[in-house]
Amino acid sequence: MTVGNEMYELCKELWPITRSITGDGVRETLSILQRELPNLKVHAVESGTHVFDWQVPNEWNISEAYIEDEQGERIIDFKNNNLHIIGYSIPVDKWVSLDELNKHLYSLPEQPNAIPYITSYYKERWGFCITHTMRQQLNEQKYHVVIKSELKPGVLNYAELIIPGKKSQEVFISTYVCHPSMANNELSGPVVTTQIAKYIQDNNDRNYTYRIVFIPETIGSITYLSKNIDHLKKNVFAGFNVSCIGDDRCYSYLPSRVGNSLSDRVAIAALNLIDKSFKRYTWLDRGSDERQYCAPGIDLPIATIMRSKYGEYPEYHTSLDDLVNVVTSTGLNGGFNALKTALDIIESNVYPKIEVFCEPQLGKRGLYPTLSTKESGKQVRAMMNLITYSDGSKSLLEISELIEENYFSLLDIVKNLVNAEVMTVTY
Amino acid sequence: MTVGNEMYELCKELWPITRSITGDGVRETLSILQRELPNLKVHAVESGTHVFDWQVPNEWNISEAYIEDEQGERIIDFKNNNLHIIGYSIPVDKWVSLDELNKHLYSLPEQPNAIPYITSYYKERWGFCITHTMRQQLNEQKYHVVIKSELKPGVLNYAELIIPGKKSQEVFISTYVCHPSMANNELSGPVVTTQIAKYIQDNNDRNYTYRIVFIPETIGSITYLSKNIDHLKKNVFAGFNVSCIGDDRCYSYLPSRVGNSLSDRVAIAALNLIDKSFKRYTWLDRGSDERQYCAPGIDLPIATIMRSKYGEYPEYHTSLDDLVNVVTSTGLNGGFNALKTALDIIESNVYPKIEVFCEPQLGKRGLYPTLSTKESGKQVRAMMNLITYSDGSKSLLEISELIEENYFSLLDIVKNLVNAEVMTVTY
Amino acid sequence: MTVGNEMYELCKELWPITRSITGDGVRETLSILQRELPNLKVHAVESGTHVFDWQVPNEWNISEAYIEDEQGERIIDFKNNNLHIIGYSIPVDKWVSLDELNKHLYSLPEQPNAIPYITSYYKERWGFCITHTMRQQLNEQKYHVVIKSELKPGVLNYAELIIPGKKSQEVFISTYVCHPSMANNELSGPVVTTQIAKYIQDNNDRNYTYRIVFIPETIGSITYLSKNIDHLKKNVFAGFNVSCIGDDRCYSYLPSRVGNSLSDRVAIAALNLIDKSFKRYTWLDRGSDERQYCAPGIDLPIATIMRSKYGEYPEYHTSLDDLVNVVTSTGLNGGFNALKTALDIIESNVYPKIEVFCEPQLGKRGLYPTLSTKESGKQVRAMMNLITYSDGSKSLLEISELIEENYFSLLDIVKNLVNAEVMTVTY
Repeated sequence: MTVGNEMYELCKELWPITRSITGDGVRETLSILQRELPNLKVHAVESGTHVFDWQVPNEWNISEAYIEDEQGERIIDFKNNNLHIIGYSIPVDKWVSLDELNKHLYSLPEQPNAIPYITSYYKERWGFCITHTMRQQLNEQKYHVVIKSELKPGVLNYAELIIPGKKSQEVFISTYVCHPSMANNELSGPVVTTQIAKYIQDNNDRNYTYRIVFIPETIGSITYLSKNIDHLKKNVFAGFNVSCIGDDRCYSYLPSRVGNSLSDRVAIAALNLIDKSFKRYTWLDRGSDERQYCAPGIDLPIATIMRSKYGEYPEYHTSLDDLVNVVTSTGLNGGFNALKTALDIIESNVYPKIEVFCEPQLGKRGLYPTLSTKESGKQVRAMMNLITYSDGSKSLLEISELIEENYFSLLDIVKNLVNAEVMTVTY
Repeated sequence: MTVGNEMYELCKELWPITRSITGDGVRETLSILQRELPNLKVHAVESGTHVFDWQVPNEWNISEAYIEDEQGERIIDFKNNNLHIIGYSIPVDKWVSLDELNKHLYSLPEQPNAIPYITSYYKERWGFCITHTMRQQLNEQKYHVVIKSELKPGVLNYAELIIPGKKSQEVFISTYVCHPSMANNELSGPVVTTQIAKYIQDNNDRNYTYRIVFIPETIGSITYLSKNIDHLKKNVFAGFNVSCIGDDRCYSYLPSRVGNSLSDRVAIAALNLIDKSFKRYTWLDRGSDERQYCAPGIDLPIATIMRSKYGEYPEYHTSLDDLVNVVTSTGLNGGFNALKTALDIIESNVYPKIEVFCEPQLGKRGLYPTLSTKESGKQVRAMMNLITYSDGSKSLLEISELIEENYFSLLDIVKNLVNAEVMTVTY
Repeated sequence: MTVGNEMYELCKELWPITRSITGDGVRETLSILQRELPNLKVHAVESGTHVFDWQVPNEWNISEAYIEDEQGERIIDFKNNNLHIIGYSIPVDKWVSLDELNKHLYSLPEQPNAIPYITSYYKERWGFCITHTMRQQLNEQKYHVVIKSELKPGVLNYAELIIPGKKSQEVFISTYVCHPSMANNELSGPVVTTQIAKYIQDNNDRNYTYRIVFIPETIGSITYLSKNIDHLKKNVFAGFNVSCIGDDRCYSYLPSRVGNSLSDRVAIAALNLIDKSFKRYTWLDRGSDERQYCAPGIDLPIATIMRSKYGEYPEYHTSLDDLVNVVTSTGLNGGFNALKTALDIIESNVYPKIEVFCEPQLGKRGLYPTLSTKESGKQVRAMMNLITYSDGSKSLLEISELIEENYFSLLDIVKNLVNAEVMTVTY
């Protein structure tokens, strides 16, 4: 089975689970991810815990939610689609008029066949989300609305995987586990991140330590930061927020707040290698956990590599963001590949330094054609261009940009020159 | 009466006075400005005083100047227009041939109905300025030229108004009182500056100290600098040269010598708020007292906000620069408004700093919509963009440029966030 | 005789000599240059000497080289054209089949009438270079190949001329003496450099010391650097590599590795004065001794001013690069003039500083028109623009670029202002 298919199968398995920022659905999701990544450690933080300016909310669980008409027919049932219920809806069980019901219904007139995704974590409310087509079929009568939910002190869960490397410097990778039944935003994030974690684990020669977290969005990143900020600020030198990385339509990049961190330059380089037409967003387009990771005073070097960005594709935050028309195995594979390429660059981005004055005599080392003709110059151009900029002050990534040569081709040349003992590298 | 009309009336009152760089006309002008600004203090510097590389020239006064033909008809009389006489003309009373007269006549063939404005402060000379139409009507005969002027040791006058604020740091504003009977260059400058002085005085909560001077151009600014340079270099952190600020045709900006001082950035921001199509000149286009204020070794942060710039409109330095076709009450009002906007930005340009880690929980403070929908994000975008850049290192002006939001709208948000105790500001 | 003609005659004299990176031809060439520049000192470095990563190769000399057919006819004879023999060919004397011969023949199918220029300094080989037209006439028979060459320990020669100035800071100029019978690349380099050396010697008031070297390419510059690197790094503040500077088709500039050294800015300024349409290459286009002079760790500030750049004109490295169709006396003169202009700028590029606060009163010094009219401002614009930027922090070159005025016109104004005692200059 290809990597893309493996990821697609995991998406399908995770799809039906009722996720929110807290509750059984998160735990069920994390336990499936633990099966894939045995070293993944699940944490729990109690409701009410102060995390910076916020408090961990009560835990929310829901067993049933439906609307019955006077004939006893269930016209909407949350069992059919997790999106039918506003996230964090309070319990209700009463008969209401159509007028009253309408105050609690949410639909999208411009996307009449889509169920919108709506939450109300911090204000007590109840409501149903339905297609606009269905809403227009409702008539004057009494409706029985039932929500069997529970909102009470419990815990907020998240999971953390530390993959140690030769160095204590860390690459930080973060993704979400709070979105129910939507595919690109956001089953693609945790699923691609799981695959990346396996890829990193498989490399026994890795230089850096990797810290990978699966969290609920916003409150989860704030909670994680509040518990780990000193360690993160001291150790994290690069990282990515992983979101919306499973469809086939484009590649996208959203910068960190400072905009020129190593993560930014690596993200751009990786996407340039894969598809130069990738979309470049600005910090003003942000909208996911980079808001927290790059907040003033936090300032972690976190950039985002995506396929179709949240808020920018028509199916976003609706039931149309599915595993049929939006996320595909090739889409997931492309996203995995982009992130993998970025990490490969971070792992290998040395500072080469030529160790002889003037040009090295490459001929005597078998690295240079022995007959100088009009054409022979071109053959060694890339090597000579690499050497001329290898003064120890520029990373291989910078050099590859400067001389417009493929990063990984240059990496091979670096290895040859190091073997020939004319070059040294530092990290 | 509107502010524009008030300024226009003052222009009319000042119009007929015979101004030059010294003399009774300057004193009469300053005394009218003292009526408007009772705290304005008039200074006198004796002729011959050394001011840097220059010497204050003799004082010049003139009572009569005319040309009579053989029939005793006064064909040109300075009483009809101050511009008829070259500024600083020496006395003369003699009969001359047309040939001889022509050596002392100045006219503009390409603007045959305009009287040019010409001066000769530092070389003794006499001469008349006339329309080219009239010049062409002169015929071979004797002409009686009479100039009753006086050029002798006296004083150079200028006026200074200090409006103290909470801080000793100063905003410096300079304008001219040496131009006779021309409107944009230069009754608009002293008249708009007078109105700005009143505006500043009316603000009892001002942060900064304002130093406002009404001086003769060049020799006046050099004299003022020579007497105040140490104080100015220590205290002035922003300022404007006020000139050509009363017509209706465009807005203009001329930078300081360094080009990126606070005054420059504020001038650009203010003009962008008013009319994005304003003209941007360069330091090479300079021509007014910014030459002295920004000279090497002086280097005050002085930029210039104008309407139609000196040298760039057809009526410049001629009798056509009048209160009928060039300067209007709406033109003056626009100029006042541009300068006022710039000063308002300087007064309020704080460095905001968000005082909580990660995004503040704005919901619990009533600053954030409680229901998260596809649309709700947009409503708080400006606030969140302000917050994300409020790390204490960027001024509100910089942030407004970075996030492309109206400066004064952001200032209101800053006030809300300060009240909600999640933000602090420093000056 | 014009300077251009003088240089052209010297090219003709040097043309027939059999030059290579070592040997009698180099010595004969340098001895002719010593006749022109009596202070030129010739150095010899023994074969086998270690120079950085390289070793000085054995000395190569050749007396005869030809191919005879079965009829005893010499179909190719090195006496007719130095290019017929691969540089550093080992001796041979044998009969070979056409097949065998073809392995040792080099021609250019796309330039059938050109003899290519080919060398094999560091790998023992023999071979002949011929026109493709002649090659196609060869038929199946035995050929007698004879090369009477000698490859044995000897010396590598180069020449050095030091022209002392008031200061010990040095301008470094380097050119090649290793190319046989080709004109633009490279008789133009040593010949124009010889003329430049005479020009520098003729200036008795020169500020800087000039170090001029005539060397074989690559091994020569590496050898020279290895013997002088400490002195060069301490003293050289500007310099040029002189190559391909004798044809008439265009002017070219190739930057130093850092790209913004004084040499780079001067080269651009000089070429802008001569022909604004000059070609700008990048460091990636390098290919001559700037590779050594700007290598990591060497980093001398060496830029290159050329006419048609090596590798970029069709006759490059073939017998077509001749004194008939490529290099001309006017081409040489233009190259000389470009280099001379660059050196003139280096010699005179002072840091002017106005010594009075505010604008100086130029009128009293006779430097300013006494009558101020609409037009008079323009006449003194260049002077005032020079003054306003003469704060001691900018060189005259920078100021001339900033105010877009001719460098040498400004230099005249600087002299006037220094004479008038309002300006001082430092180097």
